[in-house]
Amino acid sequence: MRITEIRQTTVPIRSDMKNAYISFSEMTVSLVAVVSDVVRDGRTLVGFGFNSNGRYSQAGILSDRMIPRLLNANSADLASQDGTYVDPRKAWQAMMLNEKPGGHGERSVAAGVLDMALWDLASKCVDMPLYQFIRKAFGPELGISGEEPSNRIFVYAAGGYYDAGKGIAGLKDEMKSYLDSGYTTLKMKIGGATLSEDLRRIEAVLSLLPSGEHLAVDANGRFDRAQAVEYAFALAPYRLKWYEEPGDPLDFEVNKAVCAQSAIPIATGENIFSHQDVRNLLRYGGMNPETDFLQMDPALSYGLTEYVRMLHVLLEQGWSPSRCIPHGGHQFGLQLSAGLGLYGNESYPGIFKPFGGFADGVKVEDGTVRNPNLPGIGIEQKAELYELCRELLA
Amino acid sequence: MRITEIRQTTVPIRSDMKNAYISFSEMTVSLVAVVSDVVRDGRTLVGFGFNSNGRYSQAGILSDRMIPRLLNANSADLASQDGTYVDPRKAWQAMMLNEKPGGHGERSVAAGVLDMALWDLASKCVDMPLYQFIRKAFGPELGISGEEPSNRIFVYAAGGYYDAGKGIAGLKDEMKSYLDSGYTTLKMKIGGATLSEDLRRIEAVLSLLPSGEHLAVDANGRFDRAQAVEYAFALAPYRLKWYEEPGDPLDFEVNKAVCAQSAIPIATGENIFSHQDVRNLLRYGGMNPETDFLQMDPALSYGLTEYVRMLHVLLEQGWSPSRCIPHGGHQFGLQLSAGLGLYGNESYPGIFKPFGGFADGVKVEDGTVRNPNLPGIGIEQKAELYELCRELLA
Repeated sequence: MRITEIRQTTVPIRSDMKNAYISFSEMTVSLVAVVSDVVRDGRTLVGFGFNSNGRYSQAGILSDRMIPRLLNANSADLASQDGTYVDPRKAWQAMMLNEKPGGHGERSVAAGVLDMALWDLASKCVDMPLYQFIRKAFGPELGISGEEPSNRIFVYAAGGYYDAGKGIAGLKDEMKSYLDSGYTTLKMKIGGATLSEDLRRIEAVLSLLPSGEHLAVDANGRFDRAQAVEYAFALAPYRLKWYEEPGDPLDFEVNKAVCAQSAIPIATGENIFSHQDVRNLLRYGGMNPETDFLQMDPALSYGLTEYVRMLHVLLEQGWSPSRCIPHGGHQFGLQLSAGLGLYGNESYPGIFKPFGGFADGVKVEDGTVRNPNLPGIGIEQKAELYELCRELLA
Repeated sequence: MRITEIRQTTVPIRSDMKNAYISFSEMTVSLVAVVSDVVRDGRTLVGFGFNSNGRYSQAGILSDRMIPRLLNANSADLASQDGTYVDPRKAWQAMMLNEKPGGHGERSVAAGVLDMALWDLASKCVDMPLYQFIRKAFGPELGISGEEPSNRIFVYAAGGYYDAGKGIAGLKDEMKSYLDSGYTTLKMKIGGATLSEDLRRIEAVLSLLPSGEHLAVDANGRFDRAQAVEYAFALAPYRLKWYEEPGDPLDFEVNKAVCAQSAIPIATGENIFSHQDVRNLLRYGGMNPETDFLQMDPALSYGLTEYVRMLHVLLEQGWSPSRCIPHGGHQFGLQLSAGLGLYGNESYPGIFKPFGGFADGVKVEDGTVRNPNLPGIGIEQKAELYELCRELLA
């Protein structure tokens, strides 16, 4: 069993929307295919991986460093113990060869894309849905109980961007459409308007919901300390689900100040890309392991292989994997959520297509979804995305 | 005044040596040329930039994101107040457009390479050596006294790698050659051998020196907490210049533990790439602003523009720019060292050619060097490097 070829392409996922920090007008993602020499039912097994929105394609790092290292590695050194699949953990070491410590950005995305494809491929080789394979591989070391993971995953609809000309009526229409399609919990952007305008927007959305517990708000790291705390006080009466990324993701003192002042839970982590950075967030960020949320995105942060290291850091620091709800809205996150017993997963209905979303035909029921019952991540059951994969292999 | 073209290339700087963490067998750097429409004495003014060793070429991020953003920006928005040069600070904002906060690695190198070229170009436009232009631009806001900066820069010879078959005799020969060429202070690698072997290597080098104050040692982030502290105790009797990067660059608790136990100064920062990460190091790393050293490398960490932000963080945290001695051994570091009143600069005699080192004819005298007396960084007076620049423009 060995890797015969690795292909990659860059796909634009541009959109007109904006959060408080950036516009998505030039956004791109990397898509990779890791081809094996394993033939099953007459078809060559191939693993697919891609990154989620926010951090751009990594074509250069993939082609200059990661892919050549993987292809140059000795196949025997990458094989699983029983020789039935390429072990993504061994492949991770190979692709990170001669990389210095620190500096966790960009290459974390390149490694994340390849790691995703390698886990997709490995679970196809063992003929299991990824979440079941993950539970088998990591359940014992992480102390996650239950051989058979639950396949009902909580998802929330992340939207409420500052699109040009949208207005409050447009925001309500958007949010209502998510509720109509089965979501129970919504997230909207804040920090791209004045506080009073943001409060009007929040109140408009709350008018659609049974309680504040069904709405989260996201500042995308925009605020300085004073603004972050001002928003915390202003948001308190609404008893929201969470207040996300108030300040710069690496300014742990701002995060700590907000945690100390906020009546509602804090969520952060989508711009934290290594277990070392997660450790710093938990050491210094003032977060509460009983009530707050961690949103690291495995597709942007060196993949599942590193995500498991992050979970070990969580356990050391008195946290549970059940406080994690990954950023990114992709099928890989859904698989990890079920396999590792996470809180749930982000979802972006209708945007970042075709990388976001669920397998075709999967319905959101009472705010939850399921992974499809087929080996790997399930990309083959997402026609629009699988079409891009087939073009890459053509 | 505007940018007419930006070219880039990738140059291998591979070498057979190893530190405790990586081999340099596949190391590459990016070289860029920013071409202006300014003609002076019949020649078009061009700025050159490159990254230092350790973090690889950034061809992909440069071509996919940074260079197009710079070329797409409105020239008037990038111009200095008097219209005589492209302001690198305005260009920095343009090339970082639509980049999310956090994740400081790789893109910090791409931005650093372009920022270097833009400062080279700007100081050519105002017809000043870069260090004089820097002092004029940033001296007042940083409270650096003296209109006319000193142009004697302390440099130390960084070597003592674990080359195959080198042995202690080879190490001594190498170190002696640095002393013979005018250096007074040396640095060698540790952590790639056993402690007892490393102590033998240290004692061999010390036999060439008047005191431990002339030797620094560098673990390249290799140690866990116990090893890092064990080395601190073992190194104490030698009263060395500094003990560099004992643990992972982002594990501030290891750094703090070593600082608390070490009789000799600690140096770190070459794997810290943003002012946010510097702030965390100073907040949590337990370092002493009177005795310890900071080694952030402007070529790897978003350039001079971000380096000035780092210095503002230092001032806020009770540090002085005079505790900084940048990693990288390049002419850009020498210019910053003189312009910003830093402690000095790293130097790698004979390796990482032609990017490391000084302008041709510059001699190390009593452990110091000078910047050449010509506009910009002085690359035109470094024939082997300038030849690569001319090839890029050909």
